[in-house]
Amino acid sequence: MKLYDRQGTPNAARIRIVLAEKNLDDAVDFVTVDLIAAEQKQPAFLKMNPIGKTPVLELEDGLCISECTAITEYLDNLDGAPSLTGATPREKAVIHMMQRRVEIMLMEPIDDYFHYATPGLGAALKPWRMPDWAGAKDWAERRGSYAVANLPYWDGILNETPFLAGGRFSMPDITLLAALDFAKGAGLKIAPNLAALAGWRSRVKDLPAVKTRSGQDFLPEDISRRKQ
Amino acid sequence: MKLYDRQGTPNAARIRIVLAEKNLDDAVDFVTVDLIAAEQKQPAFLKMNPIGKTPVLELEDGLCISECTAITEYLDNLDGAPSLTGATPREKAVIHMMQRRVEIMLMEPIDDYFHYATPGLGAALKPWRMPDWAGAKDWAERRGSYAVANLPYWDGILNETPFLAGGRFSMPDITLLAALDFAKGAGLKIAPNLAALAGWRSRVKDLPAVKTRSGQDFLPEDISRRKQ
Repeated sequence: MKLYDRQGTPNAARIRIVLAEKNLDDAVDFVTVDLIAAEQKQPAFLKMNPIGKTPVLELEDGLCISECTAITEYLDNLDGAPSLTGATPREKAVIHMMQRRVEIMLMEPIDDYFHYATPGLGAALKPWRMPDWAGAKDWAERRGSYAVANLPYWDGILNETPFLAGGRFSMPDITLLAALDFAKGAGLKIAPNLAALAGWRSRVKDLPAVKTRSGQDFLPEDISRRKQ
Repeated sequence: MKLYDRQGTPNAARIRIVLAEKNLDDAVDFVTVDLIAAEQKQPAFLKMNPIGKTPVLELEDGLCISECTAITEYLDNLDGAPSLTGATPREKAVIHMMQRRVEIMLMEPIDDYFHYATPGLGAALKPWRMPDWAGAKDWAERRGSYAVANLPYWDGILNETPFLAGGRFSMPDITLLAALDFAKGAGLKIAPNLAALAGWRSRVKDLPAVKTRSGQDFLPEDISRRKQ
């Protein structure tokens, strides 16, 4: 299999943790997509994913799978022993609910903040962003504030249960970790008084699949290539 | 089980088709949520779903499941014979990928168009919408155009395969049907020359689970209650 992604981005981190958790690192060749040059918006990439986003997992027979949830479902079920996406109807429901909640309450607004309230990934991507409008920056700041304001909700959940979907590390924990790293990388401030969230984060960062993988933090090493 | 929703909305339609397909209509009591009065944004509802959106499925033991994908995973797996969410890793991957593509390329931009380029569900919801800004209408119109511009992609897919995830009706077909009804209800024009999409739509509308259920079309009968 080939994984088209860009180390250092939140969605690359999500799939790399899945690969490590499922011992599939060696089953994948990594292909770097030059996000800062907008490679993901060019025709060759759009044939793999019409939405123009990484990561994309290409199987041996050519099938291209995009969207982190879909890639995770694939990789997690390959060995017939899903550990990240649930086994019972109830586990599947809570995992998919929490996954969407992390995306809607954190990942998407942080992404809006990053791309519209900061230089984001730079000028090459501008043609694929919304054109500037009066109040764009205010809107993006509000999106960042919305994400930050949602953090106590997650702290509350983690006050009651060790992981987002119960007693076991699963897909939405990965997404939440990536979202928190993304928030930090984008310059959003996470309140230090959220003890359950902080405790969960330390525990998750110590898990072997998280600890050993590369590309966890949102720190594009060549972000200075961005033209602003 | 109880289903909190509002007949006539796209997301209510999605779950009602799932219930019919799985022969679970009689297992559910329907509770109407008054979306036009912003009942879904009040504390009682937010305890069930912090995002403040319908539908929510409440189980006998009190667990509340929100997000259509999560509710569908639950209902589809109850009988141990998932038909809508896939059985193999590959089926699951394609189904979840197509589900997110329909949401990102159609459902979300149509929702933006509906709420910001038309009167949407009216004035009571305004405090939970983005405040007016210069260019808001332009932005919303662009979101609608984006959805319409994406329709040929789906026509292309359906030119090659009878349903979105292959030979069998599954979760993303339901989402696409709801999105097309939503687009029509919101006043967006669907190009008549997309033959494969039109053929698929007729076939899907003839399926028993789709044909017999109520609340398919996006036609809130009391939309005139909206204060503008």
